[in-house]
Amino acid sequence: MLTLVGLGLQDYRDITFRGYEAVKNAEEVYLDTYTSRISSSIEDLQRFFGKRIIEAKRNDLEEGSRKIIEKAKEKDVVILVPGDPTIATTHIALVLEARKANVETKIINNASIINAVCSLTGLQNYRFGKSATISWYRSKAFIETIYANLSIDAHTLLFLDLNPPMTIKDAVNRILELDSSFKDYFAVGIARAGSEDAVVKCDRLRELAHFSFGDPLHSLVILSKKLHVIEYECLTYFASAPEELRDLVL
Amino acid sequence: MLTLVGLGLQDYRDITFRGYEAVKNAEEVYLDTYTSRISSSIEDLQRFFGKRIIEAKRNDLEEGSRKIIEKAKEKDVVILVPGDPTIATTHIALVLEARKANVETKIINNASIINAVCSLTGLQNYRFGKSATISWYRSKAFIETIYANLSIDAHTLLFLDLNPPMTIKDAVNRILELDSSFKDYFAVGIARAGSEDAVVKCDRLRELAHFSFGDPLHSLVILSKKLHVIEYECLTYFASAPEELRDLVL
Repeated sequence: MLTLVGLGLQDYRDITFRGYEAVKNAEEVYLDTYTSRISSSIEDLQRFFGKRIIEAKRNDLEEGSRKIIEKAKEKDVVILVPGDPTIATTHIALVLEARKANVETKIINNASIINAVCSLTGLQNYRFGKSATISWYRSKAFIETIYANLSIDAHTLLFLDLNPPMTIKDAVNRILELDSSFKDYFAVGIARAGSEDAVVKCDRLRELAHFSFGDPLHSLVILSKKLHVIEYECLTYFASAPEELRDLVL
Repeated sequence: MLTLVGLGLQDYRDITFRGYEAVKNAEEVYLDTYTSRISSSIEDLQRFFGKRIIEAKRNDLEEGSRKIIEKAKEKDVVILVPGDPTIATTHIALVLEARKANVETKIINNASIINAVCSLTGLQNYRFGKSATISWYRSKAFIETIYANLSIDAHTLLFLDLNPPMTIKDAVNRILELDSSFKDYFAVGIARAGSEDAVVKCDRLRELAHFSFGDPLHSLVILSKKLHVIEYECLTYFASAPEELRDLVL
């Protein structure tokens, strides 16, 4: 059996009792270090669970996933995933491969960056459109996602590349290179979502490039052109939004 | 201090260690029984935490929230929320009111129905547009949300009214009353997401009305007109999708 266990947002204390039990009963435990990170090291996790934990890198989870799936035919295998195991395509694809190979699978959910972003900003989950990733080298598709979401008055959550970690400043520059008309759009920068020292700041995109967010990981939300009044008030209280954001309130 | 603690999807074992600690340290603990439900009763939770837990109904969390906020000025108050405390507007509004009253607030996130829907269906989180609620009495706005999402090739997650619980059949009927052209659209019905006996079925909307999903709670996803090949394969394996769904693959 292959069980994917979400670790939640911050450190090992964010695992659920159900997830903890699955780890304790597992015969082999991996930690996904490819799709995201939490602040506990593999050593912290080994101490907490009292178990050896094997690092699983990109190849172990993607092209080379057959190895883990083969083991899960014989043994109870757990893969620990920072955040929730349903956000990255990697994990869904892995579960699908396992099911094709007749391996029983289970997912133990946890909070993901998406929950953290709503908590930190006060933006309403149901008003988000599709999300996208801004990566260093690959596609410019994210800009099309922003356009699409704006066309239906939805916010866009942008994940920033992790390898190496992209900052909000880098992301703003990439957006403005592709479409400089975004410079006056309101957005929210979020640093270290889910950690004790998270930083959240709402401002026009061009201003966010100059704000000190500190260390990665960073994320960015491009706001819809219309805000619910509670969203506006939350951004004022939680993200020091400028007064003029009020013009967006429905 | 006011702390909102997510309970996760199924029962008390879905709380995180961080959430458990917050409850143990709290001087007063409420359970939100208005916005959602888990399968543990208030008595189960009292036994698990070894603490008295007070039921918080709609009025305690909305118009009458001042009472809880006043208590949180003096004491450590925890509100337990089924799922994640960032999904319902009620909780964000409550946190905002507390902050306005200079009460320190904290949110301990957990998995929500959104994570469960992605796990159960294999649909990719980043391909969902705005979500909406189909309620018995109120607005028809949800149909506009479906149109908007379809226009940008996004899936629509529809929450169904809880009071009394609406079934997938009821929801399909409501959609078809408003726009009968939806009858041939592909959708995914999900019953009891997050529980051990969840049921997931993908088919054309008119067919889903006749499928036996069993007891509530039910949710519904209206699929985008384009599917990623992995989404198609997942719906085949996880949701017994009909062969003809393949026509939607990009």
